[in-house]
Amino acid sequence: MRKPRILVTNDDGITAPGIRKLIKIMNEIGEVTVVAPDSPQSGKGHAITINSTLTLEELHFEGNQKDYACNGTPADCVKIGLDKIMKEKPDLVVSGVNHGSNASINVIYSGTMSAAVEAGVEGLPAIGFSLCDFAYNADFDQAEEYIKQITLKVLEKSMPKGIVLNVNIPKMKKEAIKGIKVCQQANAKWEEDFDERVNPHGKTYYWLTGEFKNMDDNPKADVNLLDEGYITIVPVKFDLTAYDYIDELKGSFKL
Amino acid sequence: MRKPRILVTNDDGITAPGIRKLIKIMNEIGEVTVVAPDSPQSGKGHAITINSTLTLEELHFEGNQKDYACNGTPADCVKIGLDKIMKEKPDLVVSGVNHGSNASINVIYSGTMSAAVEAGVEGLPAIGFSLCDFAYNADFDQAEEYIKQITLKVLEKSMPKGIVLNVNIPKMKKEAIKGIKVCQQANAKWEEDFDERVNPHGKTYYWLTGEFKNMDDNPKADVNLLDEGYITIVPVKFDLTAYDYIDELKGSFKL
Repeated sequence: MRKPRILVTNDDGITAPGIRKLIKIMNEIGEVTVVAPDSPQSGKGHAITINSTLTLEELHFEGNQKDYACNGTPADCVKIGLDKIMKEKPDLVVSGVNHGSNASINVIYSGTMSAAVEAGVEGLPAIGFSLCDFAYNADFDQAEEYIKQITLKVLEKSMPKGIVLNVNIPKMKKEAIKGIKVCQQANAKWEEDFDERVNPHGKTYYWLTGEFKNMDDNPKADVNLLDEGYITIVPVKFDLTAYDYIDELKGSFKL
Repeated sequence: MRKPRILVTNDDGITAPGIRKLIKIMNEIGEVTVVAPDSPQSGKGHAITINSTLTLEELHFEGNQKDYACNGTPADCVKIGLDKIMKEKPDLVVSGVNHGSNASINVIYSGTMSAAVEAGVEGLPAIGFSLCDFAYNADFDQAEEYIKQITLKVLEKSMPKGIVLNVNIPKMKKEAIKGIKVCQQANAKWEEDFDERVNPHGKTYYWLTGEFKNMDDNPKADVNLLDEGYITIVPVKFDLTAYDYIDELKGSFKL
């Protein structure tokens, strides 16, 4: 049986420790192609490059994979990786390991998850992995075995088209991790605050800052399970239709 | 009774004809504040500005509204508009009118809709309006009455928290528009193709191109209803959890 073909990307950039760890794990499972941003793309959401151009640069790192740096967003990397780099469709697309949580509402801002969603749009199984530690030198070793297990399960079971997985890993020692929970996106948000400053030329400018506010006390919500020490898996879809609300809305729009 | 406070934004930039039309319509309904990108931001999805700074510039256009140009993305405009510009919460956030369709899968790439979603995250009613015509000089007059009607309905009925509306308007004369349909996001995608070129310095670069491919024959899908001549309203949510798939996935992840 041939080895599974795996496309790896991320949003922290191709040299980030998180993606290098993910590549190492994926090399143990399959034939790996990396197409990742040449610079950090955090918070890029599902941005794509329409009004400017993309470039690809083959780089050489340790390992058996092929590495390409792209000047675009994570979603661009998946699109161009599938169209221009990979001669045959991958069996799986993995994104991450992100430096920082993509649980709850972070999924909509996340370049890591948008890359996974983009793969889902292409009908491919995909997983976004995130470690709840923003540090550059975060300890990705603790989660290694879990990442491998989850990846193997997805390759074995496959997934229905249109669904990708959002995997978040708590920041703790392997021994302290309680296990894996399949769960739902918590109802939480960022309470924004813009830090206002004046530049040397007298012009006001702003830095986005904010505090994460969890408004969900449901024990099935990802943020709560992460706090308890579980790795969380939320199945994510990109059909954003609020089906439950269609009938009520129809009533309102009898114009 | 006080006039409703309305925050207006878009992704084509503050001078685009689509937003100027939307402002004109909103001025007939309420007290309008505009915080919109200072340059086109199409395809920016839910990108936010984390690693650089934002600026705001007060501009002066015709009309009673206050206009502010921001150097960020549509989602940034909503965040900074709510936090720094509007002293009191708006009653409604509207985004658009986008030059081009945001039906179907376009909702995930769309800066217009991400602005509306961002408002939804803040617990505010929000509507994204898009006209299925990419032209700069698209004819927004045909849809004027519908946009006003839909906005008034939302102000009158309000909406459950966590749901925003994705309104798409077919490119046709007012007389030809058959009416409004509340419906669902069509299963469709862009079939990508990267146009490969070589720059004057010998380096290869790529332009993203693509063809929209509708794979949905459901008569309730937005793209199909637009083709028939209806204005479509899809209720959109930002809880991306695929609830229907949780139980099956739990079965797979008994590790």
